[in-house]
Amino acid sequence: MTSFITFEGIEGSGKSTQVRLLADWIKSRFGEEPVLTREPGGCRISDQIRATLLDAANKGMDERAELLLYAAARAQHMAEIIQPALSTGKFVICDRFTDATLAYQGYGRGLSKELIEELNTLATCGVEPDLTFLLDFPPETGISRARSRNADSDGPNEDRFEQEEIAFHHRVRNGYLDLEKSAPRIHRIDATGSIEEVAARIRTVFSQFIEQRQAI
Amino acid sequence: MTSFITFEGIEGSGKSTQVRLLADWIKSRFGEEPVLTREPGGCRISDQIRATLLDAANKGMDERAELLLYAAARAQHMAEIIQPALSTGKFVICDRFTDATLAYQGYGRGLSKELIEELNTLATCGVEPDLTFLLDFPPETGISRARSRNADSDGPNEDRFEQEEIAFHHRVRNGYLDLEKSAPRIHRIDATGSIEEVAARIRTVFSQFIEQRQAI
Repeated sequence: MTSFITFEGIEGSGKSTQVRLLADWIKSRFGEEPVLTREPGGCRISDQIRATLLDAANKGMDERAELLLYAAARAQHMAEIIQPALSTGKFVICDRFTDATLAYQGYGRGLSKELIEELNTLATCGVEPDLTFLLDFPPETGISRARSRNADSDGPNEDRFEQEEIAFHHRVRNGYLDLEKSAPRIHRIDATGSIEEVAARIRTVFSQFIEQRQAI
Repeated sequence: MTSFITFEGIEGSGKSTQVRLLADWIKSRFGEEPVLTREPGGCRISDQIRATLLDAANKGMDERAELLLYAAARAQHMAEIIQPALSTGKFVICDRFTDATLAYQGYGRGLSKELIEELNTLATCGVEPDLTFLLDFPPETGISRARSRNADSDGPNEDRFEQEEIAFHHRVRNGYLDLEKSAPRIHRIDATGSIEEVAARIRTVFSQFIEQRQAI
């Protein structure tokens, strides 16, 4: 059974941790290792694009350039990683995908949603996730969590989005909630509480998803 | 008088040299320094994208990703360099622009010309060059010239396109000749002969262009 699962949410909502926990659980339950990946990035070329996108020194990035870079990274990631994994019947879990572009560049920056959807379709060849977890978390807490994580990190300076004003992150969160209303595949998960509490909520939704698939 | 001039042509057709010579001539004749720039690149962010696009190690680049990267680099270049220079009345001379994407990704790779034109318009906000020099040169000679130049260079390895088969470069050249037929702004320049002979051909066309503008 192949399944394409995505995680969405604002900075600091705990996506990366929950992606790993769900992957471990899928492995223990189904005995197969899911492909874990993320956007922007996931392969050499898309990681190069990620470095350009998230580099805090690139503050003057034009909004259309940003949107096109996300689409470019996604096209490469789909062709090189996601499509091949799905075609061999694997579970693929991706940290951020097309909904993120609608939430950040559409709702956050105010770019045309029609244009974003057109570029998403171009980049993905129309492939959509089967199941999306939207980790919903208060922007103030999420951003302060992400900022302190980045301050402790020795890695590349990837905080271009964390430096946006808080109103931007509220627009992104509201955008995500809006998207949830229009797509049954998107499940809002309350991401407050302990890591284990959030993981349990995710597993409940995931188990229902698997049962429904098996019933078809 | 503001003018947006572009140079097009296959690898090794002598564009960079002729861009510099025309710029020197404009300076000596009009007393003003043109803005010299190039695509992909021309500014920090677009140069980062250029490095990804031309990196010979990125052989597995998806064709749609490549197209979107060119559009992203162009959007940033327009917003940050070309538009501001044109709006202050400067001459802008750009080594490669939208026609290159049609020639390389459209005619060369076979991607949809409608899609390329749509992305070109998105990236440029519809701004077109006033005058385009198409340096026409035999692909075999051009590629061997470009390859030996790159072999002698200590700079980054930017030969992803030069490694394409010769048939690809013939398709690109024929694409350029096709574009010339549909756009009066494009002037084909025979780029064989000495550097000075080619420069003289370019100056003749440029002088006619300036006279026509002054007559309006």
